[in-house]
Amino acid sequence: MVNGVTEIIAHIGFPTHAFKAPLIYNPWFERAGVNAIVLPMSCRAEDFADFFRAVFKLTNTRGAIITMPHKVTATSLVDELLSTASIAGACNAVRRGLDGRLQGEMFDGEGFVRGVRRKGLALKGCRALVVGSGGVGSAIAASLAAAEVRELLLFDVNSSSSEHLAERLRKHHPALQVKTGSNDPAGLDLVVNATPLGMNKGDQLPVDVSRLAAHTFVGEVVMRTEITEFLAAAKARGCAVQIGSDMLFEQIPAYLEFFGFPTTTPDVLRSIATLAY
Amino acid sequence: MVNGVTEIIAHIGFPTHAFKAPLIYNPWFERAGVNAIVLPMSCRAEDFADFFRAVFKLTNTRGAIITMPHKVTATSLVDELLSTASIAGACNAVRRGLDGRLQGEMFDGEGFVRGVRRKGLALKGCRALVVGSGGVGSAIAASLAAAEVRELLLFDVNSSSSEHLAERLRKHHPALQVKTGSNDPAGLDLVVNATPLGMNKGDQLPVDVSRLAAHTFVGEVVMRTEITEFLAAAKARGCAVQIGSDMLFEQIPAYLEFFGFPTTTPDVLRSIATLAY
Repeated sequence: MVNGVTEIIAHIGFPTHAFKAPLIYNPWFERAGVNAIVLPMSCRAEDFADFFRAVFKLTNTRGAIITMPHKVTATSLVDELLSTASIAGACNAVRRGLDGRLQGEMFDGEGFVRGVRRKGLALKGCRALVVGSGGVGSAIAASLAAAEVRELLLFDVNSSSSEHLAERLRKHHPALQVKTGSNDPAGLDLVVNATPLGMNKGDQLPVDVSRLAAHTFVGEVVMRTEITEFLAAAKARGCAVQIGSDMLFEQIPAYLEFFGFPTTTPDVLRSIATLAY
Repeated sequence: MVNGVTEIIAHIGFPTHAFKAPLIYNPWFERAGVNAIVLPMSCRAEDFADFFRAVFKLTNTRGAIITMPHKVTATSLVDELLSTASIAGACNAVRRGLDGRLQGEMFDGEGFVRGVRRKGLALKGCRALVVGSGGVGSAIAASLAAAEVRELLLFDVNSSSSEHLAERLRKHHPALQVKTGSNDPAGLDLVVNATPLGMNKGDQLPVDVSRLAAHTFVGEVVMRTEITEFLAAAKARGCAVQIGSDMLFEQIPAYLEFFGFPTTTPDVLRSIATLAY
């Protein structure tokens, strides 16, 4: 029940009609006895900078969840960009620090990494391929680097995207081996589709699945269906897989911790969200 | 349940901790099947103008409820000030008109007038005394003028406040007789306390109650207790009275209608609010 001391998490994007986060966070807040609300705020790109500054002037704004099309703009509006957001070049979470400064972070990749770890893949020392060097691919690559993978292979049809991402990774993680230009999945520990391939019927697969080894863990960001064509092909090769929505549910506890709220597990959040849909 | 198409009524003030409106509107919206939320936004005076402009850039902001200390500032930020707000010199409700222009109105007085009418006093042609020419007194005077009282007596310990209010009333309502300088309640149809007198133990009464006739209707804006010392004295003289919170509950349907929501009655709202407190 919203009252005079409710804290706001501004969920800013455009358009907002398909936002699912309020249906997950708010029932969790109610269950946990937290007086806060995640509220969709539908803000056009040209209005974002002014609105962002203004909403953080409210004394009951605790943080913001930033989504399309504002994730890149947000990086230039915070006072401090934390490491993963800095590499990813995008920011989807902002909080007011104890000193009043705004800190921005990016949790897409953190959600992916938490999910993979929960499924038993210890990432430290692994060799991983991330296909797609856009927003989500950059975030996943940054979080894999933070998780101390040994080698990171980056591929994007726009090769300069991969090159720029590689430069940012090398700067922040000098010990990491970063390579670009190939999407060959042969012999790797982890292969991730971070492209939109699979959103539409008839899309080609992101890698040549005939070269996937059975011991390779395969992850997906596309959420159109649970088991995309790519994941189905990987499973047929004997691979363990992670579905797209795991990244979503795994990152919510990371957000909750970032904002300083009581945290929970993806399973609890999935059960709440099922009720809420 | 808040989701991606929830509309926002920004409830802007400072401080917000004692706000009761969300506890009344939001249960009503839920009962009426309206996907909207009244959300307290705690905004300091120096940040109000920027925040006000920004929040109306959101495409899912339907309106704003403005309270202390922003009611006067808001009059200069809207595109169009409706009549009562213009006379009152204050604005507590803002909506986006069909043409996108922001319209400001003031409902404190409307709430008072609706309550008095519901209790059987036809205001047209009446003679009324409003003691106190501050924000709420100005709003009540403006709404009484719109309700076509014949004569309006204004009194404030700061006589220039009454004089300025009288000027604005005469400009908008040339047929209305407006007098200032006396708080003598003798022989009037309606007497209103629109001062803070009664907020504290030992406050003097706003008028000389020994001069109140039994047929005079007596209204109050102070809400510290239901029956203030002033109302008790008036009842003892045989007067019909209106308590302070009636103004609050009577104005909510006026707000709902202004914003274009389904409306209801003060009784329904009181029953909802009782559950919510």
